[in-house]
Amino acid sequence: MRSLLRHISNWFRAYSPEEKKLLTAIRQITGKKPSNLQIYQLALIHCSVAREMRDGYRESNERLEYLGDAILGAVVAEYLFKKYPYKDEGFLTEIRSRIVSRDSLNALARKIGLDKLVIYDAKRSKSSPQSFKYIYGDAMEAFVGAVFLDKGFRFCRRFIVEKLLDHHFDMDEIVETDTNYKSRLIEWAQRNNRTVRFELLSERQQGAYKQFKVQVLVNNQEIARGSGYSKKQAEQDAARKACEYFAI
Amino acid sequence: MRSLLRHISNWFRAYSPEEKKLLTAIRQITGKKPSNLQIYQLALIHCSVAREMRDGYRESNERLEYLGDAILGAVVAEYLFKKYPYKDEGFLTEIRSRIVSRDSLNALARKIGLDKLVIYDAKRSKSSPQSFKYIYGDAMEAFVGAVFLDKGFRFCRRFIVEKLLDHHFDMDEIVETDTNYKSRLIEWAQRNNRTVRFELLSERQQGAYKQFKVQVLVNNQEIARGSGYSKKQAEQDAARKACEYFAI
Repeated sequence: MRSLLRHISNWFRAYSPEEKKLLTAIRQITGKKPSNLQIYQLALIHCSVAREMRDGYRESNERLEYLGDAILGAVVAEYLFKKYPYKDEGFLTEIRSRIVSRDSLNALARKIGLDKLVIYDAKRSKSSPQSFKYIYGDAMEAFVGAVFLDKGFRFCRRFIVEKLLDHHFDMDEIVETDTNYKSRLIEWAQRNNRTVRFELLSERQQGAYKQFKVQVLVNNQEIARGSGYSKKQAEQDAARKACEYFAI
Repeated sequence: MRSLLRHISNWFRAYSPEEKKLLTAIRQITGKKPSNLQIYQLALIHCSVAREMRDGYRESNERLEYLGDAILGAVVAEYLFKKYPYKDEGFLTEIRSRIVSRDSLNALARKIGLDKLVIYDAKRSKSSPQSFKYIYGDAMEAFVGAVFLDKGFRFCRRFIVEKLLDHHFDMDEIVETDTNYKSRLIEWAQRNNRTVRFELLSERQQGAYKQFKVQVLVNNQEIARGSGYSKKQAEQDAARKACEYFAI
């Protein structure tokens, strides 16, 4: 009943010319006219133009970003789970993190034209460059949150799979991109005059498999440990954690 | 059509006495009879008793755990998003991580009786104690993945909210538990004869707010940086990252 009333009231609602433009843009992205335009408007408000609300809470797209990040993660998880029935969870986790990385989502937002819809205060970009670096990717997540709240899980899942994943991601290419964390770490260390050393900690038989554990030391200080079914895999695992730690 | 056929074939399927017992146990947990018992069976197989499949892939609950983790994260995200409309994303992220922490899920699995259903090889627990520590919590996530695959998102969401969150979590208590990362880090450092020092890096005016950045040094080595709207908040943020780093 409430939903029916909202439908009717939306029907008679007079949209401003800007709102009509936004409605059309969103329909082009999702394939469906928004029922609740306000949620999408909020998804496009960067924190640099946040509105002051009660209790000191400032309204911007950050809450929707938190929600959209979780929904996107779940849908991509399911998508990969079904697409790769014989791949283990390490593979699935790695491929998912490539798809939903901040760089990847930033690029995706530009591809679907979301960058032109985000509202922000460019004057503030100098004082806090960090919050501007992923402004479009963050809005991408918030937009997913808005689609989920406005249209429900099933539509949102279809939107993510059909309009985003199928259209803008080449899975074979993503899978084949061998992210070599070890060489990334070593190159970084050379640029910054640091030493990198990998040490084998243990090697254990587990059923039909061997399990290797290594640690990586930078300037002789232990930074991270890694494990895997080969020494190389364990080193990559440790190097990946070290890259994360140093934000390389 | 396919779903109808599966329904009919399940109707006539003869279950073994063990399977009947499992069916009853699952129905008590979820409130609904499983349509596809095999998915739940897989969710309860710990990697210590994994079955060898093709391409060296070994079938256990680890893939379902990856899926269930993502679904649970999304449902809890939505639940908190709606329950706390005026709380910021930092708060929501923190409360969610308390709910889905490995300790919390381990305890939850015991509460709903999942610990009695998990199949594992106890003889192997000595050789890899790490994979046994969260055996029930991991199965809890895998079980959520099974419910999602068997019954769809809407039922799975209702299961998580009504049977898990409403029944077994006291939100007020969870929110009020003040996780003091700073004192946790300092106590750990004292036990391990290390020094801890917090240093203010910057203090900037951002609109009506001040933004603080600090770094935390352990044995004079920078471990992590944190930010927040107060020095205390920024220190807690840095301390939290340091606790993660040292796995305290």
